[in-house]
Amino acid sequence: MSHPGVPDDPLVIPASGGAYPVVVRRGALADLPALLRRHAPAPLYAVVSDATVGPLHGAAVAESIREQGTEAFLTTFPAGERHKTRDTWARTTDALLEGGLGRDGVVVAVGGGVTTDLAGFVAATFMRGVGVVQVPTSLVAMIDAAVGGKTGVDHPRGKNLVGAFHAPRLVVCDAEVVRTLPREERAQGLVEAVKHGAIRDADHLDEVADEAPRLLEGEPAALERVVRRSVRIKAEVVARDEREAGLREVLNFGHTLGHALEAAWGYGVGHGTAVGVGMVLEARLGERLGVTAPGASETLARVVKDLDLPVEVGEASPPAPEVEALLRFLRADKKGREGLPRCVLLARVGEVASAGDGRWSHPVPEEVVAAVLSESAEEGSNA
Amino acid sequence: MSHPGVPDDPLVIPASGGAYPVVVRRGALADLPALLRRHAPAPLYAVVSDATVGPLHGAAVAESIREQGTEAFLTTFPAGERHKTRDTWARTTDALLEGGLGRDGVVVAVGGGVTTDLAGFVAATFMRGVGVVQVPTSLVAMIDAAVGGKTGVDHPRGKNLVGAFHAPRLVVCDAEVVRTLPREERAQGLVEAVKHGAIRDADHLDEVADEAPRLLEGEPAALERVVRRSVRIKAEVVARDEREAGLREVLNFGHTLGHALEAAWGYGVGHGTAVGVGMVLEARLGERLGVTAPGASETLARVVKDLDLPVEVGEASPPAPEVEALLRFLRADKKGREGLPRCVLLARVGEVASAGDGRWSHPVPEEVVAAVLSESAEEGSNA
Repeated sequence: MSHPGVPDDPLVIPASGGAYPVVVRRGALADLPALLRRHAPAPLYAVVSDATVGPLHGAAVAESIREQGTEAFLTTFPAGERHKTRDTWARTTDALLEGGLGRDGVVVAVGGGVTTDLAGFVAATFMRGVGVVQVPTSLVAMIDAAVGGKTGVDHPRGKNLVGAFHAPRLVVCDAEVVRTLPREERAQGLVEAVKHGAIRDADHLDEVADEAPRLLEGEPAALERVVRRSVRIKAEVVARDEREAGLREVLNFGHTLGHALEAAWGYGVGHGTAVGVGMVLEARLGERLGVTAPGASETLARVVKDLDLPVEVGEASPPAPEVEALLRFLRADKKGREGLPRCVLLARVGEVASAGDGRWSHPVPEEVVAAVLSESAEEGSNA
Repeated sequence: MSHPGVPDDPLVIPASGGAYPVVVRRGALADLPALLRRHAPAPLYAVVSDATVGPLHGAAVAESIREQGTEAFLTTFPAGERHKTRDTWARTTDALLEGGLGRDGVVVAVGGGVTTDLAGFVAATFMRGVGVVQVPTSLVAMIDAAVGGKTGVDHPRGKNLVGAFHAPRLVVCDAEVVRTLPREERAQGLVEAVKHGAIRDADHLDEVADEAPRLLEGEPAALERVVRRSVRIKAEVVARDEREAGLREVLNFGHTLGHALEAAWGYGVGHGTAVGVGMVLEARLGERLGVTAPGASETLARVVKDLDLPVEVGEASPPAPEVEALLRFLRADKKGREGLPRCVLLARVGEVASAGDGRWSHPVPEEVVAAVLSESAEEGSNA
């Protein structure tokens, strides 16, 4: 069905500023100039990458656009989450103005989640908004960060506290790009696919479990299948709630406890590691509260183990944090303004339990959370 | 038809994030807590003002909200366009986080155009967007800045280069507030009403001319009538083109030459003064190009004179800038990427001439612009 150079792709995500396609295809990066011409035409493109990905992919993207006769320049910023700041946002904006980008220009983000978030926010606020094309080069960015229009930077008081919703014009996921990443990074990214399966599609969860060895090895065909299916699940959710007023909350499954763990560990573990443990614990929480069908936490734990990731707080490499410290982070979480922490709870694997009133996160008693956390801290350290 | 405390108001502006009301009524400021409760309910309000308006109105607004039993705090920034920067945006964001504003909080901007633009941008980017209520306290902010959702800050390379579209939840214009402003400031604001009349409503232009003495004196009933009618015109335009993809361009009438004059004068004149001259010159430009019906520029000049503002480049108080300098600013203007400057041209007073292809600004030959500019520089200095 596809024709050379500009293949069709069935994934189209509706958004208030216009629907946008998500192209998931091995080798798509080579077709980027043609895809840009079709879906995000501009007289000038600003390619934004971090200093690591810039030389690997960013420069090649800019060069390939220029070879097709359109102006493009590359601007880079220092790599790492600690550079996802307002300062980097300001410098990148300056570089775009310096490079002559106008209101008809388009930003092309080439990199991991930090880059797609940062460059998306630069585009959202450049001359009141220019187009952004997301070209994720990490698995977690493909599966999670690049789709859905969330953009932003961190603040000393918390992650992503400054940002905007700004849907991309186009997302291009080339699974060839991630085959060369370290195995551990692919595992981190696959946790978000596990989450998508857990909340909406039990078959997807099984697929990740079955294919785990090939996915971890970086087999592009397997990665492409998982990315496409996972993006489709996220797209369905985002399409129904672009601005996170309701359903989109389900994407936070595993993240309430995951974020607290990440913070308590001083960001010394990967986001995927923290969310993997977070999902297992939030499933146990749901089981204990009678909301989640028994066995869900065991199923999730099995898949997370298949990815060679820890499932207990005590199993991860930094020492288990004090439960009291975790509770403090939970209380500071911006989702829990009523006093009680809120978690998305499963009804069963593949389905989230409604919290009523159009909400999808449940207030959970702090003592039950504390019990689940301390048992998991014990469990791991005894093992 | 209205009931005490929370009066109805017919002005409702559609926007992608939801329609919002514009309340234009003397004394409306006293009803602000009730209006907020109805149109922008929140557990906590952050009132943003500059250091001049803060003590005059901002503190009273925060106090009146608290008196009604809802939490509110005031944060201020140094007054003046030169503080409309990313730095002030960052500090204001910090103050909101410090004050405990969450995703369910609402920003209340109380001030002139700098404040409504800046606070709007803070709200647009705070936790990916919180609600903003615009309470303009200058006439130009009432007539122009507070309605339409444009927000942003300046950059060393140009005004409003960093920003976002973020429609307010509510706009409250209380003409009592502007009666105490200096006469000259009211004249500056009325220029935007003249513009609204020029592009869409010849009767509104006549109204401003007829009422000029009372408007300049600060007669609240007259000001209220003009603000309401003028906001309605802007609302009609914005409703049809929220993101400035087409029709909204007509609001730039007088602003291509106006901005160049403002920049060439080193911002030593008011924005209204520059736009007043800009409208007269762009009308002459249209007449000379055979696009604008003869006589339009004279009609506009008469109304601008009624506001005690200059109509010729040579008449304004800084010396007339070199025509070559003006052309340089025009070439740097972000609206003129094709090489030729573009101006919105009238068909006649009250109606804009389409430029075809859904565009409303016409490319104009530089030599005709140069001729109109140099004649006006002469005219004034001979007068």
